[in-house]
Amino acid sequence: MNFLEERIAKDGIVKEGNVLKVDSFLNHQMDIGLFDEIGRELKKRFANRPINKILTIEASGIGIAAVAAMYFGVPVVFAKKAKSINLEGEMYVAEVESFTHKTKNQVIVSKKFLNEEDRVLIIDDFLANGCALQGLIQIVQAAGAVVEGIGIAIEKGFQPGGQIIRNLGYKLESLAIVDAMNPVTGEITFR
Amino acid sequence: MNFLEERIAKDGIVKEGNVLKVDSFLNHQMDIGLFDEIGRELKKRFANRPINKILTIEASGIGIAAVAAMYFGVPVVFAKKAKSINLEGEMYVAEVESFTHKTKNQVIVSKKFLNEEDRVLIIDDFLANGCALQGLIQIVQAAGAVVEGIGIAIEKGFQPGGQIIRNLGYKLESLAIVDAMNPVTGEITFR
Repeated sequence: MNFLEERIAKDGIVKEGNVLKVDSFLNHQMDIGLFDEIGRELKKRFANRPINKILTIEASGIGIAAVAAMYFGVPVVFAKKAKSINLEGEMYVAEVESFTHKTKNQVIVSKKFLNEEDRVLIIDDFLANGCALQGLIQIVQAAGAVVEGIGIAIEKGFQPGGQIIRNLGYKLESLAIVDAMNPVTGEITFR
Repeated sequence: MNFLEERIAKDGIVKEGNVLKVDSFLNHQMDIGLFDEIGRELKKRFANRPINKILTIEASGIGIAAVAAMYFGVPVVFAKKAKSINLEGEMYVAEVESFTHKTKNQVIVSKKFLNEEDRVLIIDDFLANGCALQGLIQIVQAAGAVVEGIGIAIEKGFQPGGQIIRNLGYKLESLAIVDAMNPVTGEITFR
């Protein structure tokens, strides 16, 4: 097991309905030392790619992306989930459905911050059915930019998102892939 | 002018209705090198405080808080603005009104991640009327924890939030305080 798998095995909690709670270190309370390790590992996995921008989505992708960006030396753009009066002008918009929240959101990025010069690393905390990620890819493509890679902390390998994204030819690196979870025993099986 | 005031003067855009757009470096695209300077400066200003946790609020506080936390060596908890099915169990809840979005939100923090042992630094990107901040203070107090300080990137000094918080006796440090903005000339006056 790598450092992230070890942490998930130690502090992750398996719940009914394919829910893996990692809110004590990843997406409510954030262990910044762990994020630093995630950032260093992502930099290693994408070391040969000419990345000049990181794209993530609010809210729980932002912390990982911000810390990882210190290794890449590039700015982070975070996609927003609702229209704000501070976000005027032209936007890229994609519609995505949240597995967690059972809601549809518009994902919005200002056209000012993505263009055809950009070589983008997409970062998020979770990959399950991949809808959010597909929305972000759609936005990068609408900008004429290139998806250089996708870095995920935890992929639920028993949901289709990862396979869909890899089948589309993207370089997708998930630091921990959960292939099975047992809500009765709490056991987590990693790929 | 300090480094943040210089950046606001250079890249901030003043709009009608007391709107200061800093989305090119602070709250949509994030300049992580700038966040690193903000983190270092906050550590300097709260160096003598026994801080063991940083509390912020989604979404645009998270990036600054995560990078600043590397200087403090403490975890970050971010308050959520909507109830999530992944956030079960007991919560601290405060109701806050957003100046930007003209909406009321419930701000939620799991009771697991704040308790009476905690000495909390609250970090956010903006302080205007102070409603979000008051909600975060309320949550820290409900947990029996102590607000050791409040670190803000940009305070709108012509709105009442900063004065209210200082009158309540909190150590509030805003790295840039905007005392006036002219939407016609674009001029920004710092305290």
